[in-house]
Amino acid sequence: MARGLCQIIGREISKGNFNTNIRQQMTPRGTLQLPWSSINSVRTMAVLPWPFSFQPRDFSLPNSSWGSDMRRLYEHYNSQCEVETDDGEKKWGVWRRLPSYNRSLKYATGGVYLSKIIQSKARLFTRNIREQGAAFEYVVFVNKQEQKCVCVFQAGHLLEGPPGHVHGGAIATMIDTVTGTHATYLSGPVMTANLNINYRSPIPLGSTVLLTCSLDKKEGRKTFVSCQVTNTDSSKLHTEATGLFLSITMGHLLGG
Amino acid sequence: MARGLCQIIGREISKGNFNTNIRQQMTPRGTLQLPWSSINSVRTMAVLPWPFSFQPRDFSLPNSSWGSDMRRLYEHYNSQCEVETDDGEKKWGVWRRLPSYNRSLKYATGGVYLSKIIQSKARLFTRNIREQGAAFEYVVFVNKQEQKCVCVFQAGHLLEGPPGHVHGGAIATMIDTVTGTHATYLSGPVMTANLNINYRSPIPLGSTVLLTCSLDKKEGRKTFVSCQVTNTDSSKLHTEATGLFLSITMGHLLGG
Repeated sequence: MARGLCQIIGREISKGNFNTNIRQQMTPRGTLQLPWSSINSVRTMAVLPWPFSFQPRDFSLPNSSWGSDMRRLYEHYNSQCEVETDDGEKKWGVWRRLPSYNRSLKYATGGVYLSKIIQSKARLFTRNIREQGAAFEYVVFVNKQEQKCVCVFQAGHLLEGPPGHVHGGAIATMIDTVTGTHATYLSGPVMTANLNINYRSPIPLGSTVLLTCSLDKKEGRKTFVSCQVTNTDSSKLHTEATGLFLSITMGHLLGG
Repeated sequence: MARGLCQIIGREISKGNFNTNIRQQMTPRGTLQLPWSSINSVRTMAVLPWPFSFQPRDFSLPNSSWGSDMRRLYEHYNSQCEVETDDGEKKWGVWRRLPSYNRSLKYATGGVYLSKIIQSKARLFTRNIREQGAAFEYVVFVNKQEQKCVCVFQAGHLLEGPPGHVHGGAIATMIDTVTGTHATYLSGPVMTANLNINYRSPIPLGSTVLLTCSLDKKEGRKTFVSCQVTNTDSSKLHTEATGLFLSITMGHLLGG
C-alpha cells in the first residue's frame, strides 16, 4: 500500500528529534533552503531536501490507474525535463517535474495546538486516499524559462459533484494546489489570499484535463497567478481562475 | 460500515429498471418533485423522495467523531426544527436540517458517457471517506423565513493543506457545497458559475467552524449568494466568499 513521508518517518524518528532535525535545516533567516528540483507548494505542502536514505512515495509518478491521456501528457512533459547534448551528455531541459507527497511535515503544526492524534494522522487533502485512481491523480511540471506551470489531472470517481461530473470544490482544490505551487516557485513560501473561479463547462468524471498557470504580476508580498483548466488538446475551456498569494516565512508555517 | 444510497440501491435494482423508475418520478415538465424536507444541493447532490422502504445512511446526523462544538451547534439548530404548540402539538420550526447522502443517483451521468466502473463507484466528493471524523463532517440547516442557511463543519485530519491547517481547496469545497445548497433552496436546480473566495485567517485542522450563507440578489437565471466562514461564536472571520449560480433543469442533470 501507499506509504507517505509521515508514515515512513514515523518509524525512524521520535517527535523530539524530528523537530530538532527540522530546525537544524533552517538558515539564520529562519527559512529552509529548497533546491529547485524539490520545489512544491509550500503553501499546501513543504517538500524538504530530507537527509535520509529512504524515499517516501512520490505520488506524481505514473501508476496503473493512469489512462492513456494522463500517460501521454506525462511523457510529453517528462521527456522535456532532461535533454541530451551533442556530445552525449545529459542536462536539465526547460521543464521540471515536481514530486508530490502525502504529508508536509510530521508534527509541524503551523503554530496551532493540535491533538497528538490529529498530528499523527494528518494527510495532505489532495493525497489522502490510498486507492490509486479513485480521487486526485495529478502531476505538476514547471517551466523556469517561460515562468509557466502545467498540471495533468485525472479526476477519479470519488470526486463527484453534479451527476457524472467533477465537484466544483474538487476543481477549486486543484486550482488552489497548482496556482499555489506556481506562486511558491516564483516567490517562495506563500498563503492563498484570494481565488476567483469561473466555471465555464463541467468536467466529466474520469476524464483528464490540463491546468495551465502563468504569472500575471508581482507587487511586494503579492503574487498574482492565472489558471485555465482545459481538455487535453486545449480546445475546450472548462474553468478559468485567478489566484492572489501572499508571501510568508517558512518559520511561520513550521512553528508550534 | 457506512453504506450509502448507491450501494443499497445497487443490490435491489438493475440499471435498466432504475432508470425507468427515475423517469416515472418525473413530472411532464421533466423535473423531479422535491419535497421541502428533502431539498439539498441538487448541484452537488440530488436528494430524491425515494419510494423504497429502506433508508440510506444520512451523513448529517451526529456520530461519535463529533466534538463538543459540533454537537452543541447541531443541537442549537436542530432544536429549532420542530416546536411544540400550547396544546402540545408539534409543528415545524423556522429551521430545517437537510439530510446528506454519499451519492446523487446511481447511473445518472449528467448526459456524459461514463464507464460502468466509474458509474458504479462514483461518490459525492464531500462524503467519499468512510472513516468518521477523518474528512468533512458537516450538517446544513436552512431558514425559510430569513432566507438564510448555516452549516456546522468539523474539519478532519485528512483535509490538511498548510501544516496544521485546512487546505484552501477543502474550504472552497465546503463553500461551494453550502452556497450551492442555499441557491438550490432559493431557485431550484443550479450549477456553480463563479466562486470568489477571500481567505482571511487559516482554519486549524480538527476545529469546528460555521458557514453562514445569505441571498444577495436574484436576476433571471442568476442567484447571487454570499458566505462567511467563522469560528463557532462568530467572533473570528476565517473566510468570506460570494457565489453565482445559474438555474438549470433537472432533466439536464439526469440525462444520459
